[in-house]
Amino acid sequence: MTATELNHDLDLAELGQQLRVDAVRCSAASGSGHPTSSMSAADLMGTLFARYLRYDFDEPGNPGNDHLIFSKGHASPLLYALYKAAGAITDEELLTFRQEGSRLEGHPTPRLPWVDVATGSLGQGLPVGVGIALAGKHLDRLPYRVWVLCGDSELAEGSMWEAFEHAGHERLDNLVAVVDVNRLGQRGPTRHGWDTAAYARRIGAFGWHTIEIDGHDLAQIDRAYDEAIRAGRPTAVLARTVKGAGVAAVADQEGKHGKPLPSTDDAIAELGGVRDLRVRVAGPEHGSAPHRFGSASALERPAFEIGTQVAPRAAFGAALAALGTARPEVVGLDGEVADSTRMERFATEHPERFFQCYIAEQQLVAAAVGMQARGWIPYAATFAAFFTRAYDFIRMAAVSGADLRLVGSHAGVAIGQDGPSQMGLEDIAAFRAVHGSAVLYPCDANQTAALVAAISDYPGIGYLRTTRGDLPVIYGPDEEFTIAGSRVLRSSDADQVTLVGAGVTVHEALAAADELRGDGIAARVIDLYSVKPVDAVTLREAGQATGRIITVEDHWAEGGLGDAVLDVFAHGDAAPTILKLAVHGMPASASPAEQLRTAGIDRTAIAQAARTLLAAP
Amino acid sequence: MTATELNHDLDLAELGQQLRVDAVRCSAASGSGHPTSSMSAADLMGTLFARYLRYDFDEPGNPGNDHLIFSKGHASPLLYALYKAAGAITDEELLTFRQEGSRLEGHPTPRLPWVDVATGSLGQGLPVGVGIALAGKHLDRLPYRVWVLCGDSELAEGSMWEAFEHAGHERLDNLVAVVDVNRLGQRGPTRHGWDTAAYARRIGAFGWHTIEIDGHDLAQIDRAYDEAIRAGRPTAVLARTVKGAGVAAVADQEGKHGKPLPSTDDAIAELGGVRDLRVRVAGPEHGSAPHRFGSASALERPAFEIGTQVAPRAAFGAALAALGTARPEVVGLDGEVADSTRMERFATEHPERFFQCYIAEQQLVAAAVGMQARGWIPYAATFAAFFTRAYDFIRMAAVSGADLRLVGSHAGVAIGQDGPSQMGLEDIAAFRAVHGSAVLYPCDANQTAALVAAISDYPGIGYLRTTRGDLPVIYGPDEEFTIAGSRVLRSSDADQVTLVGAGVTVHEALAAADELRGDGIAARVIDLYSVKPVDAVTLREAGQATGRIITVEDHWAEGGLGDAVLDVFAHGDAAPTILKLAVHGMPASASPAEQLRTAGIDRTAIAQAARTLLAAP
Repeated sequence: MTATELNHDLDLAELGQQLRVDAVRCSAASGSGHPTSSMSAADLMGTLFARYLRYDFDEPGNPGNDHLIFSKGHASPLLYALYKAAGAITDEELLTFRQEGSRLEGHPTPRLPWVDVATGSLGQGLPVGVGIALAGKHLDRLPYRVWVLCGDSELAEGSMWEAFEHAGHERLDNLVAVVDVNRLGQRGPTRHGWDTAAYARRIGAFGWHTIEIDGHDLAQIDRAYDEAIRAGRPTAVLARTVKGAGVAAVADQEGKHGKPLPSTDDAIAELGGVRDLRVRVAGPEHGSAPHRFGSASALERPAFEIGTQVAPRAAFGAALAALGTARPEVVGLDGEVADSTRMERFATEHPERFFQCYIAEQQLVAAAVGMQARGWIPYAATFAAFFTRAYDFIRMAAVSGADLRLVGSHAGVAIGQDGPSQMGLEDIAAFRAVHGSAVLYPCDANQTAALVAAISDYPGIGYLRTTRGDLPVIYGPDEEFTIAGSRVLRSSDADQVTLVGAGVTVHEALAAADELRGDGIAARVIDLYSVKPVDAVTLREAGQATGRIITVEDHWAEGGLGDAVLDVFAHGDAAPTILKLAVHGMPASASPAEQLRTAGIDRTAIAQAARTLLAAP
Repeated sequence: MTATELNHDLDLAELGQQLRVDAVRCSAASGSGHPTSSMSAADLMGTLFARYLRYDFDEPGNPGNDHLIFSKGHASPLLYALYKAAGAITDEELLTFRQEGSRLEGHPTPRLPWVDVATGSLGQGLPVGVGIALAGKHLDRLPYRVWVLCGDSELAEGSMWEAFEHAGHERLDNLVAVVDVNRLGQRGPTRHGWDTAAYARRIGAFGWHTIEIDGHDLAQIDRAYDEAIRAGRPTAVLARTVKGAGVAAVADQEGKHGKPLPSTDDAIAELGGVRDLRVRVAGPEHGSAPHRFGSASALERPAFEIGTQVAPRAAFGAALAALGTARPEVVGLDGEVADSTRMERFATEHPERFFQCYIAEQQLVAAAVGMQARGWIPYAATFAAFFTRAYDFIRMAAVSGADLRLVGSHAGVAIGQDGPSQMGLEDIAAFRAVHGSAVLYPCDANQTAALVAAISDYPGIGYLRTTRGDLPVIYGPDEEFTIAGSRVLRSSDADQVTLVGAGVTVHEALAAADELRGDGIAARVIDLYSVKPVDAVTLREAGQATGRIITVEDHWAEGGLGDAVLDVFAHGDAAPTILKLAVHGMPASASPAEQLRTAGIDRTAIAQAARTLLAAP
């Protein structure tokens, strides 16, 4: 049966009113929430559920399901009211909104099985929707549609225009943005008010089909969706609506954002009372399975000869290409720097699974988030510094429980002449402060190759920091490296100090240990390639055995490897003496060796710090 | 004399060739750099210098000077070649490009007196230019123009569209974007190649005047600039150019980005040899002084009564309004949440100095960067979590040496029901890892008011974390709080443990100390409101006196207050026993009190931690 047949006896105007009533009720029960932002979009979403959405609420993992993202996540009362109307949750659960222990959070999260990604930071739902739409067309190759409910306020976010550009250029005809133009933002009127033509001009210029409608006229809504799914292009339905529609006390008024209605009972009465209509959402049309790019095979990791000089970024490129061969669900996404990050090789060997996102790091990460929501294993790469552009998306990806692999090349002052704008010097701090993340920073090519594979199954945000320049290969090609591990590279019973580095500073620490040995000082050296989670056992052992630890990192002194080591000794135990070497001054252009020297993180500085530490009383 | 008269004997074609030759020469001397990206824009910029730019190179601080931003900062060889042609630097200095100690960095920074802001992270120059243009029209009220050289690749960045939208809507007719459409990005062709019409459609839809030209046709360039400055709207000159123009070995070829030319001598010969033309850049037309909003007066800080309950964000709003009265150079910028951050009061009292940036956090921060470049004192406020959206801009602002005040409200789990998408839980880590930053986190209203004033003169990025909910006022209205200070709130000779908090956890620590006193345990309590720079002296004293420190913060465990305390003891001295309490699990919706309890950072958790620590052997 078609959706229209399924709901032939359903009065959509009544459904809209029910959704408003339920948004008002659950916000009243919680004493907070965004009922007015829900009421404006109720007719738009009610019609979508009754007539166009294809979704099996009993089987949220059905690959044929459409995807619905509330980019304006604060309209969660509407989303939950829709779930109730669809029979997915009870009225009782609806009224647990925003209470401790409830799945119905202030902004939607994937704690609810029907939610793909968390929203609530505006401007993210559409870029993630682009990612799912890309997956639908080019990876899954299934006819599901992606519906994104957007607010008008969030059209001020640049990330939305990255999404419009990407989707328009790719002609993603499986993507529909429904823009709830209720003209009022949080603080006051939006820039364009009800001028839907202003939005149409802009979005149309990016290659989208646009339709301007009255968002409370059910016939117009129905016709717009029908037109949208036949447009052959991504379509934006620009719907003029009234914030707080249906309740005169709040309708189209400033100062009514994000709070329950002044009188719940009056509002419900004005809306015609509580209803219990049920909308029958049609299931997916096709039962077919998603496309797969061949079958899995054993991973043949690239091997690098000990003693040769190889850039970790080059090892990443080779390892990702190999992983792509072994695992057909691996996908590569580039921010128009694949020649630098060395993802190029993956692009050459697996062109069907390579996605060019151009210099739009927010869309880059969002596309990866969307693809992982469909079960793909995305690796997104750009310069380490430029992931700061997408930090809000990474933060929200953690709220979504997304499994992402992000690879940042050009880390630290060691990049040399390009100067501070291109140096990732805060990336470890930023990624450590992402919930559930792993932060990996290999020091040689074989270790890099091993970690590229190791993070493929990491449940959460896995960050790999690769180094631009050549570094000596010190590990054999068959060594295994696990997340949360480390390597003790020099060790003896006589060790008086421990040197802890990662990436480029491992080699400086080794050289310093050699230099110190000449002075009769025995130094333990630890390669702390897993900065998070950190190998606390090995560090504690070293602290106990040597009593002194020097950490050295090509990163600002705040939030990086040094702080990760310090944290190990912040659990109520006695700590060894610790000295942290890191970058303090703002670098300028200089050669890599000059940079390490100036920053005080080269072999000479490490050896000198060790001598000073040992000379202290 | 007009610029045209000044340069009546200058052959602009020859000037363009000289600029190319010099870009080639300095890149060859350094062995790195971006000559081909410079060569495409040489004619565009040569004509600008000779005919349109008004700039006194002897007096870069002249308020009447135009502003020129290389948003495509990698074209620095061209910028430096222009400086040489203008007589601002010598040929000898030109050849120090990218070498240690040179001002001529890989990407321009304000180490050069003629550079307003650092560029090199694409998509930032235009939004910053919007900030300067806003300052020109609404603050300085001077007729200077802002010229921004953009790359075509960077038009993929959403931040550019935030800028187009802001400038178009504000009709900033003092802003000209010159887009060097050389069709080749770093890795390969851009999305739209030479289709300047595609850019014109998009940019035009945002209210800009657009002009499409051949970027190597000097007459077309001249006419375009003439048209731009008369357009009455912001104008984009979309110039079709050839990357590497003038040298057949690299012209319009992929794989020639960011590297010296294959043969320097051949290239120079092909370009007609080394020249030493001088361009006479016209000075500013008007000598008038910038507008000032009245004169300075003594600050009358708002006062809050000890024992009352006041939200720190409310104190921020009142204090900023008062500061605006005392200091006429203070400016407020809002990300469409002034009702929440409480900047609203500043908007009401100082409407001429209030700027609405809507939900576009990148443009919000960029506008502030632009305004401070003109000597204004901008305060930009949004939710703490949403500064992550602008993290790359904040990172680059530090490279620019910008003096910014950023105020993040809605910090931590203490916001309660709204859930994790709205909780700043990584903001301290992110801001600590910004070079030269100050991170302040007040716990009461009077302290907030004092710190709002204290950061007004901070040289660098000053971040103030305000709390959403009411907190008891514990300090008198006349107390002074300095950056890098702290307050010892409980102290005795018998102290067995030190509790260190900031913001909401100060009050939890105080309550825990009271509870512990009932158990006969004396606890010192420190309000570490300045998380960076940190008051190391007070912390060391406490560590020595009590031997045990418990840190407690409403923030992830990584990179926050706890790590700031640990860092104090990472300088080779013996450390006390430290225990770090922070947020570990992903929060959901719940009341503020429930959130603090669940996170294990409330009074009960602190007291329990202290007892456990004291019971340890």
